[in-house]
Amino acid sequence: MLSRIDHIGIACFDLDKTVEFYRSTYGFEVFHTEVNEEQGVREAMLKINETSDGGASYLQLLEPTREDSTVAKWLAKNGEGVHHIAFGTEDVDADSSAIRDKGVRVLYDEPRVGSMGSRITFLHPKDCGGVLTELVTSAEKH
Amino acid sequence: MLSRIDHIGIACFDLDKTVEFYRSTYGFEVFHTEVNEEQGVREAMLKINETSDGGASYLQLLEPTREDSTVAKWLAKNGEGVHHIAFGTEDVDADSSAIRDKGVRVLYDEPRVGSMGSRITFLHPKDCGGVLTELVTSAEKH
Repeated sequence: MLSRIDHIGIACFDLDKTVEFYRSTYGFEVFHTEVNEEQGVREAMLKINETSDGGASYLQLLEPTREDSTVAKWLAKNGEGVHHIAFGTEDVDADSSAIRDKGVRVLYDEPRVGSMGSRITFLHPKDCGGVLTELVTSAEKH
Repeated sequence: MLSRIDHIGIACFDLDKTVEFYRSTYGFEVFHTEVNEEQGVREAMLKINETSDGGASYLQLLEPTREDSTVAKWLAKNGEGVHHIAFGTEDVDADSSAIRDKGVRVLYDEPRVGSMGSRITFLHPKDCGGVLTELVTSAEKH
């Protein structure tokens, strides 16, 4: 069951500059940074609030690390902005399987490793009203 | 102080169809619906989780009610997808004033009425890394 807004993924050209914008404008601090080589992104997670399911909601700021990454291609087409949204669940495997059975395209055969050791998958934006939608099970839950 | 992700605003051509997608795919139910004549939108709020500041996070599904509304123009240009993100605060007046003083363009001179009797304002997306950003104080806080 999807039980929280886990994060909003925001694509940017310059991660350090964008982190500084969110810090100086709103006071949001970096909770975690990492490079995901598979996704071709360098990212910063800013924790905004905790949630009633025992998790939290983050902004995920994403800078591409190579020109052939999906985020780099998305930025070239769209410019900076909201790239995807993510819902948190205790069981991404079961939920993505159930959603696939409803006819929504799930982009990975099996969930992969996401931010902070989570397990993630994505749903096709054309099946979700134009919204690239991620499902996340955080590391402590799987 | 901004203390939660209040909502993600998603623009759509057909509100009823989009509400049904979120219900049948994820189990998210409608918490509230209203028409905002000033904004030129019909909207449904889906409550996803409660937040550690005593508020909640929603999806806000938006269908334009007239062709000259900003959401209608946005849809004509971009198609369906994430239209804006919103952060919750106890004092939208103070926070928007402080953010204006930092050089970020605030779109309203004074906050206006938003969903469920809230007070809202918007920040210019060109000053926010391509992200149309709303600030919200919920009705019970103002």
